[in-house]
Amino acid sequence: MDQLGEERRKAQFDVDDMKIVWAGSRHNFEVSDRMAKLVASDPGFRKDTRTMLARKELFKNTLRKAAYAWKRIVELRLSEEEASKLRFYVDETAFTDLHWGMFVPAIKGQGTEEQQQKWLPLAYKMKIIGCYAQTELGHGSNVQGLETTATFDHQTDEFVMHSPTLTSSKWWPGGLGKASTHAVVYARLITDDQDQGIHGFIVQLRSLEDHLPLPGITIGDIGMKFGNGGYNTMDNGVLRLDHVRIPRSHMLMRVLQVTREGKCIQSDVPRQLVYGTMVYVRQAIVADASCALSRAVCIATRYSAVRRQFGSQNGGPETQVIDYKTQQNRLFPLLASAYAFRFVGEWLNWLYTDVTQRLQANDFSTLPEAHACTAGLKSLTTTATADGIEECRKLCGGHGYLCSSGLPELFAVYVPACTYEGDNTVLLLQVARFLIKTVSQLGSEKKPVGTTSYMGRVEHLMQCRSDTQRAEDWLKPSAILEAFEARATRMSVACAQKLSKFSNPEEGFAELSADLVEAAVAHCQLIVVTKFLEKLQQEIPGKGVKQQLEALCNIYALFLLHKYQGDFLATGCITSKQASLANDQLRSLYSQVRPNAIALVDAFNHTDHFLGSILGCYDGNVYPKLYEAAWKDPLNDSVVPDGYHEYIRPLLKQELRTARL
Amino acid sequence: MDQLGEERRKAQFDVDDMKIVWAGSRHNFEVSDRMAKLVASDPGFRKDTRTMLARKELFKNTLRKAAYAWKRIVELRLSEEEASKLRFYVDETAFTDLHWGMFVPAIKGQGTEEQQQKWLPLAYKMKIIGCYAQTELGHGSNVQGLETTATFDHQTDEFVMHSPTLTSSKWWPGGLGKASTHAVVYARLITDDQDQGIHGFIVQLRSLEDHLPLPGITIGDIGMKFGNGGYNTMDNGVLRLDHVRIPRSHMLMRVLQVTREGKCIQSDVPRQLVYGTMVYVRQAIVADASCALSRAVCIATRYSAVRRQFGSQNGGPETQVIDYKTQQNRLFPLLASAYAFRFVGEWLNWLYTDVTQRLQANDFSTLPEAHACTAGLKSLTTTATADGIEECRKLCGGHGYLCSSGLPELFAVYVPACTYEGDNTVLLLQVARFLIKTVSQLGSEKKPVGTTSYMGRVEHLMQCRSDTQRAEDWLKPSAILEAFEARATRMSVACAQKLSKFSNPEEGFAELSADLVEAAVAHCQLIVVTKFLEKLQQEIPGKGVKQQLEALCNIYALFLLHKYQGDFLATGCITSKQASLANDQLRSLYSQVRPNAIALVDAFNHTDHFLGSILGCYDGNVYPKLYEAAWKDPLNDSVVPDGYHEYIRPLLKQELRTARL
Ligand SMILES: Cc1cc2nc3c(=O)[nH]c(=O)nc-3n(C[C@H](O)[C@H](O)[C@H](O)COP(=O)(O)OP(=O)(O)OC[C@H]3O[C@@H](n4cnc5c(N)ncnc54)[C@H](O)[C@@H]3O)c2cc1C
Ligand SMILES: Cc1cc2nc3c(=O)[nH]c(=O)nc-3n(C[C@H](O)[C@H](O)[C@H](O)COP(=O)(O)OP(=O)(O)OC[C@H]3O[C@@H](n4cnc5c(N)ncnc54)[C@H](O)[C@@H]3O)c2cc1C
Repeated sequence: MDQLGEERRKAQFDVDDMKIVWAGSRHNFEVSDRMAKLVASDPGFRKDTRTMLARKELFKNTLRKAAYAWKRIVELRLSEEEASKLRFYVDETAFTDLHWGMFVPAIKGQGTEEQQQKWLPLAYKMKIIGCYAQTELGHGSNVQGLETTATFDHQTDEFVMHSPTLTSSKWWPGGLGKASTHAVVYARLITDDQDQGIHGFIVQLRSLEDHLPLPGITIGDIGMKFGNGGYNTMDNGVLRLDHVRIPRSHMLMRVLQVTREGKCIQSDVPRQLVYGTMVYVRQAIVADASCALSRAVCIATRYSAVRRQFGSQNGGPETQVIDYKTQQNRLFPLLASAYAFRFVGEWLNWLYTDVTQRLQANDFSTLPEAHACTAGLKSLTTTATADGIEECRKLCGGHGYLCSSGLPELFAVYVPACTYEGDNTVLLLQVARFLIKTVSQLGSEKKPVGTTSYMGRVEHLMQCRSDTQRAEDWLKPSAILEAFEARATRMSVACAQKLSKFSNPEEGFAELSADLVEAAVAHCQLIVVTKFLEKLQQEIPGKGVKQQLEALCNIYALFLLHKYQGDFLATGCITSKQASLANDQLRSLYSQVRPNAIALVDAFNHTDHFLGSILGCYDGNVYPKLYEAAWKDPLNDSVVPDGYHEYIRPLLKQELRTARL
Repeated sequence: MDQLGEERRKAQFDVDDMKIVWAGSRHNFEVSDRMAKLVASDPGFRKDTRTMLARKELFKNTLRKAAYAWKRIVELRLSEEEASKLRFYVDETAFTDLHWGMFVPAIKGQGTEEQQQKWLPLAYKMKIIGCYAQTELGHGSNVQGLETTATFDHQTDEFVMHSPTLTSSKWWPGGLGKASTHAVVYARLITDDQDQGIHGFIVQLRSLEDHLPLPGITIGDIGMKFGNGGYNTMDNGVLRLDHVRIPRSHMLMRVLQVTREGKCIQSDVPRQLVYGTMVYVRQAIVADASCALSRAVCIATRYSAVRRQFGSQNGGPETQVIDYKTQQNRLFPLLASAYAFRFVGEWLNWLYTDVTQRLQANDFSTLPEAHACTAGLKSLTTTATADGIEECRKLCGGHGYLCSSGLPELFAVYVPACTYEGDNTVLLLQVARFLIKTVSQLGSEKKPVGTTSYMGRVEHLMQCRSDTQRAEDWLKPSAILEAFEARATRMSVACAQKLSKFSNPEEGFAELSADLVEAAVAHCQLIVVTKFLEKLQQEIPGKGVKQQLEALCNIYALFLLHKYQGDFLATGCITSKQASLANDQLRSLYSQVRPNAIALVDAFNHTDHFLGSILGCYDGNVYPKLYEAAWKDPLNDSVVPDGYHEYIRPLLKQELRTARL
């Protein structure tokens, strides 16, 4: 029985067309849809008991799934694209993520042609399993502070890899703890007692025969992490190296070469190449953010339409909680954010191609801007997504707290995205640094490019005032854009002005860093709004599709405008009257989206398997499924719980004195 | 080795005196300190492997601890106060929480003298174990919508307790699933086919001999909840009643009596009594909020002083991350909030006594205000605490994501406080309703009382403008107070004005509910600020103690002022210049607090056992302990993981085709 059928009939647009827009193209949609269904229909990929498993069982099951997925990939001769989608829909964090997502790209990006030829075929066939060992117990954000050493030994033509202190133990790398046979280990290169900075080295960790750690290597798992199931399927590991010798050829030498004599030679490959990889990794993270948020929003939206509470009149049905304006005010901006992040992710993907082409043509001019922009968007989208998932969980009331809602695990497994690949605060400080530099160059030869080009209109933006007079005026893209541009500009400029009062700029930067972070956020929000608006300038086929996206775009922008109205008012971009009009408009946009809400989350095309949530199931048949699922908890194996005779009965019978506890 | 010794020496106040202030009195401090140490030193209460246990083991261990705690309580002849503190420091959510915290109070509050005499002695000795069964699968927030029926049977003088639908299954009650022998079941009383509303009934669930469910009773656990360990020690349960008969005397009849003839007789006990209980429960929740937040803040503060990242000059030590302004700007307001919530909790405790006395004197005049105020403060403090714990976790970077940091479990176990005892949004809507009523009565006979009395100065507050001219002016209590009062008043009045434009007030209320919630938040924040300021008007002994509290109070207020500057500016209470001055002042308060930060968290007097966090340990010796703890994960039982032979080796050896997966 489809509890949500009536909701679906209300939709004022064509869901199938929206699915294509969401997927990015018909091709993407088709591949995704096929792989999602393949995984969903295969009992080998079931995950419904994941949150109940103890660590060892859980991990063993992940090993099984990873092997099984690979088997299927080989059997079905899946393309690289299909294979990566299949892994994605298996939806279980595993050592293979690091193998494919970090180990292989590190070799591709930092290895010479020769090294690539040696290692990549092994990696592609999974004859070796690799991980990415950068972070140490004592150093994460500050990569330059890593303590592991790789000392060149002239005599043997080897590097001696060593962990000189406790804090130099590698700590966190995924796949390291139990599964990997190899790692790219980042270490301080030492030649002739000279510190040559941090470089990557391929280190074999375990025997390919019996999987035992090689001599000098101490290795293990770092222990349980946040949440049931979730990231505990991953063997994040600890690694100590005790004078482990590797051939000189195992240093990744694309950028810097160490010769037989121990000389360091900078190659003609530009160092900036690493930024290209960073842009790549971060655009993937932004795409992930939109996907994770869309899952949470899908669950909360469907459940909010099923859940009824209060408001029954004359014994009729109660109000669907999705009809409460407070619920809409918490939920719909997240729905809009999922779409917004999707489109900015799409654009970042384009940016990556653009940057790569420029790099190949030795054009580094847009690199700092691209770097700042991806850093900022990584920070913005992951923070918003983590918070958004938790908000969706709360939107489901008590039942959202059950693992069977899928939301606790989604949160727990998602939230480290705020920390890895750059701590979100540290990243915003980088964005701020770039913005201040951009401001300082205004009026000079160097024109602001890309996502900062709006600053070229600094004079206008410093003094313009919004001319919105009625609520509907806030629907105009130009009105929104000007307000966001003016706010971002003024916040950056204000910071720059305050900074100029410090004699030591670094001290000033440190002192004002909280304000600088706010300016960076304003800039990043502007990027997201801009890219959404740009998307809407494209032709978007399908009945009613564009109208829905316009409403979502406006919700995204006006919700931010309301939430950050302090910024807009303090900088004088808008008046409080205008802020209030924007808020009125926002409310009426909610009413516009309401009948389309279910269809808008259907457009994500998530299978019930992928969602992994009873509250979010497609047919909305929540209560019978919740009830049924409960009985599967191991605690329900017996009616009288294990421990009754030892602990409950003596308590009730007042016989504790003699009980063994 | 005390890594934090130097930090402790920097403190500019007497920590021991602050401990007394935090505890509320010397007596409180001594009892708490004694019980905390008792628990911490007893290996029977260890909890360091809790997050690694599978559900059944975990639950069995909780049963053991609960029995053991009771045994110790009896052996040591602890007073009620001591016993409850001991349970608190055991720090493991258990069926006993509901027994003592809900079952006993329900009987006390809703049972007749006779019923109390019958049931309480049994409960006090734990000869029976009780739980509180209100929520159903289909109804939580809307208690009036509960579907379970209690139909009076004239013939037998019994009630027939029944679950007529799937959604009427009781769902969530803690302790119900496995441990309880009895429950107070809330059900719709039916006499002579007349619906008499929701009342409480004592229902025996399980045999006292063999713990098997009694006839007609289906009962079980509802399954895993958010997080490792955490709330999974609790057997939140499901209960279906199939025409279960209980004696008429088992209905709790303090307010409404059902006679032998099935007549309903309202007793002369005022119905409002239930509100007294609510005030009690919610003040306890606010006290818990300050405690939970203080734990997270203690962990994050200590670790932020140990953790160093970047900023090494000439090979010297790197910067402690606590010295970064962004870190301070995220952490210190939470430190201030912990203190703020502590004091508002203290005041609520007084309010409860006050309300109780008034009720006894049949004075109900302050009840609506007390009710709104506790509802609002419950919502405000639990939301801020849940968010604050997660922020503290992020402040610890990657290591905060490990269970050994203690923060994941603290978050997961705390966060349902935003949902139970009133969903936080639903509560704020109640506050808003009260505020609108208060505004509508301004100028009438009925003067605003208690926490709304500031509205009596509505005329002044509607037109006043802050006279702060320098940053230091924001240190004046009067400046802060006026700004917060003006903001709260104006937001409520603005809502009331908008509401008056609707012909149907209920429709207006629904339409504007998002704005109304914001007004309610503004009002609640004002209460917290006010109570903190009032606390500072008392005499507070101890070297430097009051100065520290003043700084924290100002941080709390000015941080809110900055975060919500949109409200303050939109309502014209302050100018953007003044907002910026407040922010400058805030920054300099951070510098003032910085040298005292460690001592300020030491003042919470949390034992290492209670904190349950390696990152937060008293001696700051974080790295060796993290390293050591990692090896205890079950995954490290063997060097080569379980599953290697089945899944990893065939993968590496390209032998998957024939593998059984
Ligand atoms: C689930 C997970 C998987 C991971 N996988 C891998 C992996 O596969 N390989 C790998 O090498 N690593 C991995 N990591 C490690 C990860 O990259 C680091 O945790 C991350 O870089 C953050 O660094 P940190 O932990 O040192 O945080 P810290 O830098 O210690 O952060 C602590 C606090 O200090 C603040 N802070 C730090 N520096 C500054 C500054 N300059 N200014 C202001 N504030 C500052 C931060 O904002 C934060 O609040 C993983 C981590 C996690 C959680
Ligand atoms: C850990 C835990 C322990 C519990 N222990 C017990 C126990 O011991 N005994 C017991 O009886 N119960 C217990 N409960 C149940 C708890 O009391 C309910 O979950 C709680 O009252 C919330 O109700 P709900 O789940 O129906 O949420 P819902 O009301 O369904 O909330 C869903 C969404 O609807 C919104 N909403 C609902 N009504 C309105 C409205 N009128 N206006 C605007 N928005 C609205 C909410 O804000 C929320 O976003 C427990 C729950 C948890 C999570």
